[in-house]
Amino acid sequence: MYDNKAMLCDYYELTMGNGYFLNGFYKKQAYFDVFFRTVPDNGGFAIAAGLEQVIDYVKNLRFNKEDVEFLRAKNVFDEGFLDYLANFKFTGDIYAVPEGTPIFPNEPILTVRAPAIEAQLLETYILLAINHQSLIATKASRIVRAAKGRAVLEFGARRAQGESAAVVGARAAYIGGCLGSSNVLTDQIYGVPAGGTIAHSWVQMFDTEYEAFETYCRLYPTNACLLVDTYNTLKSGIPNAIRAFKEILIPMGINNFSIRLDSGDITYLTKEARKMLDEAGLPQCKIVVSNSLDEYLIRELISQGAYIDTFGVGERLITAKSEPVFGGVYKLVAVEDGGVITPKIKISENTAKITNPHFKKVYRIFDNKTGKAIADQICVHDETIDERDPLVLFDPEANWKMKTVTDFTAKELQVPIFKNGELVYEQPSLPAVKEYCASQLDLLWDEVKRFENPHNYYVDLSYKLWDIKRELLLRGK
Amino acid sequence: MYDNKAMLCDYYELTMGNGYFLNGFYKKQAYFDVFFRTVPDNGGFAIAAGLEQVIDYVKNLRFNKEDVEFLRAKNVFDEGFLDYLANFKFTGDIYAVPEGTPIFPNEPILTVRAPAIEAQLLETYILLAINHQSLIATKASRIVRAAKGRAVLEFGARRAQGESAAVVGARAAYIGGCLGSSNVLTDQIYGVPAGGTIAHSWVQMFDTEYEAFETYCRLYPTNACLLVDTYNTLKSGIPNAIRAFKEILIPMGINNFSIRLDSGDITYLTKEARKMLDEAGLPQCKIVVSNSLDEYLIRELISQGAYIDTFGVGERLITAKSEPVFGGVYKLVAVEDGGVITPKIKISENTAKITNPHFKKVYRIFDNKTGKAIADQICVHDETIDERDPLVLFDPEANWKMKTVTDFTAKELQVPIFKNGELVYEQPSLPAVKEYCASQLDLLWDEVKRFENPHNYYVDLSYKLWDIKRELLLRGK
Repeated sequence: MYDNKAMLCDYYELTMGNGYFLNGFYKKQAYFDVFFRTVPDNGGFAIAAGLEQVIDYVKNLRFNKEDVEFLRAKNVFDEGFLDYLANFKFTGDIYAVPEGTPIFPNEPILTVRAPAIEAQLLETYILLAINHQSLIATKASRIVRAAKGRAVLEFGARRAQGESAAVVGARAAYIGGCLGSSNVLTDQIYGVPAGGTIAHSWVQMFDTEYEAFETYCRLYPTNACLLVDTYNTLKSGIPNAIRAFKEILIPMGINNFSIRLDSGDITYLTKEARKMLDEAGLPQCKIVVSNSLDEYLIRELISQGAYIDTFGVGERLITAKSEPVFGGVYKLVAVEDGGVITPKIKISENTAKITNPHFKKVYRIFDNKTGKAIADQICVHDETIDERDPLVLFDPEANWKMKTVTDFTAKELQVPIFKNGELVYEQPSLPAVKEYCASQLDLLWDEVKRFENPHNYYVDLSYKLWDIKRELLLRGK
Repeated sequence: MYDNKAMLCDYYELTMGNGYFLNGFYKKQAYFDVFFRTVPDNGGFAIAAGLEQVIDYVKNLRFNKEDVEFLRAKNVFDEGFLDYLANFKFTGDIYAVPEGTPIFPNEPILTVRAPAIEAQLLETYILLAINHQSLIATKASRIVRAAKGRAVLEFGARRAQGESAAVVGARAAYIGGCLGSSNVLTDQIYGVPAGGTIAHSWVQMFDTEYEAFETYCRLYPTNACLLVDTYNTLKSGIPNAIRAFKEILIPMGINNFSIRLDSGDITYLTKEARKMLDEAGLPQCKIVVSNSLDEYLIRELISQGAYIDTFGVGERLITAKSEPVFGGVYKLVAVEDGGVITPKIKISENTAKITNPHFKKVYRIFDNKTGKAIADQICVHDETIDERDPLVLFDPEANWKMKTVTDFTAKELQVPIFKNGELVYEQPSLPAVKEYCASQLDLLWDEVKRFENPHNYYVDLSYKLWDIKRELLLRGK
């Protein structure tokens, strides 16, 4: 990734920043929310990811001499503003949901409170990091759920949309539930276990397929995985693999090996392969498959009775092929001048594009009997939910639909990340994030997690927030 | 992007490399081709891009101390191999089609000839760079063609799949025909002109929409673009913009300004906007639109008679949303031992997955009467096409279909990039690449460039290559 990310922003962040500077808005505190409007693939929820990269970015955000020179040469920016940039350091507050949290449309997943210029400058990078990683973590979670307990490995580096998509994408896939990745750099930087098998080129490089397999088994006797489809899967690949396992690994007392299928009719071939392996006395041999897999194909393969132990998933995971955009936005929700917070709204003819105004907080409401999440409620920042009182939830788009809950636990979703420019959050280790993600998924009802027509999990507004929003809508701004 | 890209590879490149090392294959020269099998979006051709990044990668590929330590800790790699990596420097040859070249399925767009270990190690990064940028350049070319001469700007950083997708993706979009990008870092690194307008937050930050517009026009009188859909496009946005242009810019003698629409029914709104602007005596005011555009929507808007001067295209370009994977592969096509080149083939039950064996070259055949490209012919490396002789082209999948051409020019597509590890290619400037791309598109028939059912441009094999391929297929390897 780029060492200096200060210039990794849309040009208008800088022209607006310059304008705010010249208008004295650096004293005005602005509140921006990051939220998204729809879940990719018509899913019931998404997985938040990318916060670690946002933290690194904000912590290290400086404009160096070359940056300032570059901007000066545009003949657009005020010298005072360039000077301001040269001395830039983030001084605001950031709140966010921890990575790995299941998130729902229209709730703030990250909130920035900072002088207008600072808050504006962060927009592009925050969206870039959160959108990308939440997209991939969400997709990985779907694929892992489809695999029903079988291992899923991320194999997509060669089809990723650029270097950071390959590396940070594999990080997000790990959060979403993949056990490892083919990408060595993701292992080196983030500790995501790297692994892999062999390519067709290995097999072709030798005079015979058997020689290629034999050599590989001798070299890597523990956990050898042989790719059997270079020439003819059933007639040469699998028989040669069986021979190599029996002649080399079994005499060594090794029972941890597998074959990989990367083409052809996977269901048929895995059934035939399983039969051949079992008949050869190798029931311990595992079967790995790859080749343009995603959650739909995996579900289909399993329902057809394919014998598969491990899925290697490439391009359709690392690009989230079926829906490759996570539409998070960064919207102004309030400004603060002299300690007074004024809520702001973006009105649209398209109802779905109307924003939830004000500095807010979000509670997730858990039923104490089942432990499961019932709904989220968005409140104004100064509200608190008292768990001893019954809580009335109502649908903001159909507010006659109400539900009163008792015996619940209310958990605030956002936690403080920066306060007055200082990092106050300790980023958990990546395995801890992954584990947290899995544990949070267990708190969602299965109905929310299914692929087709998932149950609509409610994200409601408090009465107070609803009133403020309605008043702004009536006023027309 | 990552400073040290040595570890940005699939783990199996290293385990295979280690195996080649231990088997003495570092003396064996391997030939690998990069090619793709289908054009995204059912298009008639793709645009090659990403070579500059491949060159940087190969030129700078070194394994530093930390890398070697990291690999040693895996307890998998031979000390001799680790030592080899510590002293690694690419020593082979690379041939490639220049960036911006229209490319077709199954022809080699990049060829590596190098000792087996070296050639294998390059696989992941070469595919990553070529796949990503060819994907985006191809998509941009489609979008720009749909815009029929209107300006297209790349606005997608916030929805890109990671940092390099945003930056290098904007570079590829520029090659494909975009005039500029919102991304400042792409301007700073690659010189792609950065530009932008204002966000809704700018408008909301002021007490009134007019005050926001007025302030902006005073600040940026040249080329002001006002976003008119924050509150109500027709009732407040456009009237306020007209007032600001007339009160501030017109008295200054400035006539270069525009409005931007980012939501609602674009055709209707641009027609109304055009009427309002013209009636206000501002026919010079341009109209910019954005909001989830791609080639299909742009074509539809134009055919509906929308009044649009400039398109700002975001997520659907920067992720190539409709088909976000460019399926380039890296396949062994020959090995060379003691000066003898042995062609290699990858056989598959899926005919489309059978590779074209051998060290090859590709000619593009241009009709001298029209100047247009007729077909590409793939030859064995030692063949040359003599333009004085009639040339017989035949369809490799239906070889009774033949065509004899005379009065043609044959241009070799691949050029030498590295020879014996030395860079021998001078990378053209990015504007030159962009211009070259546009000029090469002019040499394709319109029938190849249309979106629906494009004419199938033939990529044929020479008789000699066809014979070699057939023989390998009959032998079964």
